[in-house]
Amino acid sequence: MKTLVLGLGEMGASLALDLKKNPDNQIYGLDANSSSLDYALEKGIIDQAGQSLSQVAPEMDLIILATPVQAIINILKELANLPLKDGLIITDLGSTKVEIMKVAKQLFAGKQVAFIGGHPMAGSQKSGVQAGRTSLYAQQTFFLVLANNPVSRASLMKLEGFLQPLDARFIVCQAADHDQWMAAVSDSPHVIAFALMNAAVASLGKPEAFKNYTAGGFKSMTRIAGSDPQLWTDALLSNPAGTLAELNQFKEELDHFYQAIANGDRTALFQIIQQAATARQELMSGEQE
Amino acid sequence: MKTLVLGLGEMGASLALDLKKNPDNQIYGLDANSSSLDYALEKGIIDQAGQSLSQVAPEMDLIILATPVQAIINILKELANLPLKDGLIITDLGSTKVEIMKVAKQLFAGKQVAFIGGHPMAGSQKSGVQAGRTSLYAQQTFFLVLANNPVSRASLMKLEGFLQPLDARFIVCQAADHDQWMAAVSDSPHVIAFALMNAAVASLGKPEAFKNYTAGGFKSMTRIAGSDPQLWTDALLSNPAGTLAELNQFKEELDHFYQAIANGDRTALFQIIQQAATARQELMSGEQE
Repeated sequence: MKTLVLGLGEMGASLALDLKKNPDNQIYGLDANSSSLDYALEKGIIDQAGQSLSQVAPEMDLIILATPVQAIINILKELANLPLKDGLIITDLGSTKVEIMKVAKQLFAGKQVAFIGGHPMAGSQKSGVQAGRTSLYAQQTFFLVLANNPVSRASLMKLEGFLQPLDARFIVCQAADHDQWMAAVSDSPHVIAFALMNAAVASLGKPEAFKNYTAGGFKSMTRIAGSDPQLWTDALLSNPAGTLAELNQFKEELDHFYQAIANGDRTALFQIIQQAATARQELMSGEQE
Repeated sequence: MKTLVLGLGEMGASLALDLKKNPDNQIYGLDANSSSLDYALEKGIIDQAGQSLSQVAPEMDLIILATPVQAIINILKELANLPLKDGLIITDLGSTKVEIMKVAKQLFAGKQVAFIGGHPMAGSQKSGVQAGRTSLYAQQTFFLVLANNPVSRASLMKLEGFLQPLDARFIVCQAADHDQWMAAVSDSPHVIAFALMNAAVASLGKPEAFKNYTAGGFKSMTRIAGSDPQLWTDALLSNPAGTLAELNQFKEELDHFYQAIANGDRTALFQIIQQAATARQELMSGEQE
């Protein structure tokens, strides 16, 4: 089976490595950065480097878009103008789904091409093809979002079969539910991590001046502040309403702490800290820290 | 040498274990929780369990207060009313220093007792005597704050000698500088982690409902939200001005992100994310993630 992985960053390269566990898969790669493509070919992450989307896409059985969200939308538009195989499945790894699903629905209406949105809860603050590794997706939640049409629904089992070497935990959900969850557990936390990092620099100067006074807590809180700026600019602007609603919720909670500290209200402060500590323990119950 | 460790939580128990590496040290323990004290004695974390502060304190050469900040202040007041050895050194492990130094200065003025404030940048979200382990402080920054009197200054080298088995990196600083640093890298980050955890519960319900949709980023950002509620109520209320000033700085930075997302301003958003990502890389340069 011929599969194209478009975008060979941490996510795409790791996915290609897992798909290659199935010897029937022939993995083609494309990347805007030619040195990433050369590296992927040299290291055996992909079997062939594609020349261009228009040259390689028409032969494919599966196309996986592993780029930032804005690029996914642009590539979908290009794909819709190409002659594609009947039965082709297109999927993506973008972190928001409402906008992508809307665009895909319009572009592929009435065609024998299935678009199924994808979003694996995997990846780290690392980026680039060198960060690619096998088993990145193993036992991780992997959301799949169906377009509301028969072609998409009929292709779901087929796609899950193709992606079986990832050993991921697939969850089929609605785009709107997905984006609200992500705003709460991923988008707003990224914004908060970025803002915390910038606030420390504003207060204390360059990190080299305070890195020796910084314990593990600050470092774990800002780990995701090191994420790829282009990827996160795209992600946040593709889910603005959800992200802003979650940031408002966060600001409200933060204000409870601010007021309790300002008022020296020991009882109120203890109660909301305990609420957070209990929730954190529930979040991690049955898991290793 | 006779040393009393008062408070056998993660910090106190770990410190006792390290001090026992020196066979000349005789370690006494006290804890409000008698089962913690029994555990410490049984596991050899301490050599002797004290009966009461008034009974054990007068014989000591070194007293280490490893309790939450409010309890430190109460115990200092008790100690000031007891007959203490000339040359006794008292130190603490409290996470804020201005208030403690002020109280100690008044209580021990004119006495042959040295109070030197301590604050090791170590410890985790774990708590309790069972979390005690050797080498918790190894290669970690350990702040020491001198009272502005000759007894305190003359005892610094002696205290560093006593604490040598910890293998910590001692930094002598002013109480006010210490508390401002801590507000930026520890106090306000804890408040933000608590608020983020509570915001997620407010939006998504109980953690068991969303734990499967939660990736590593949210988990690392909320790790310190699992910290001990009593300890952190005390810590935040002992440094309210610093914490509130840092939270204001954070809210200002957060607002830049909020505005950029609300305005769909790709350029501004990319720029402030990149600023955060660059600072995070500088923070971690030369360190393993």
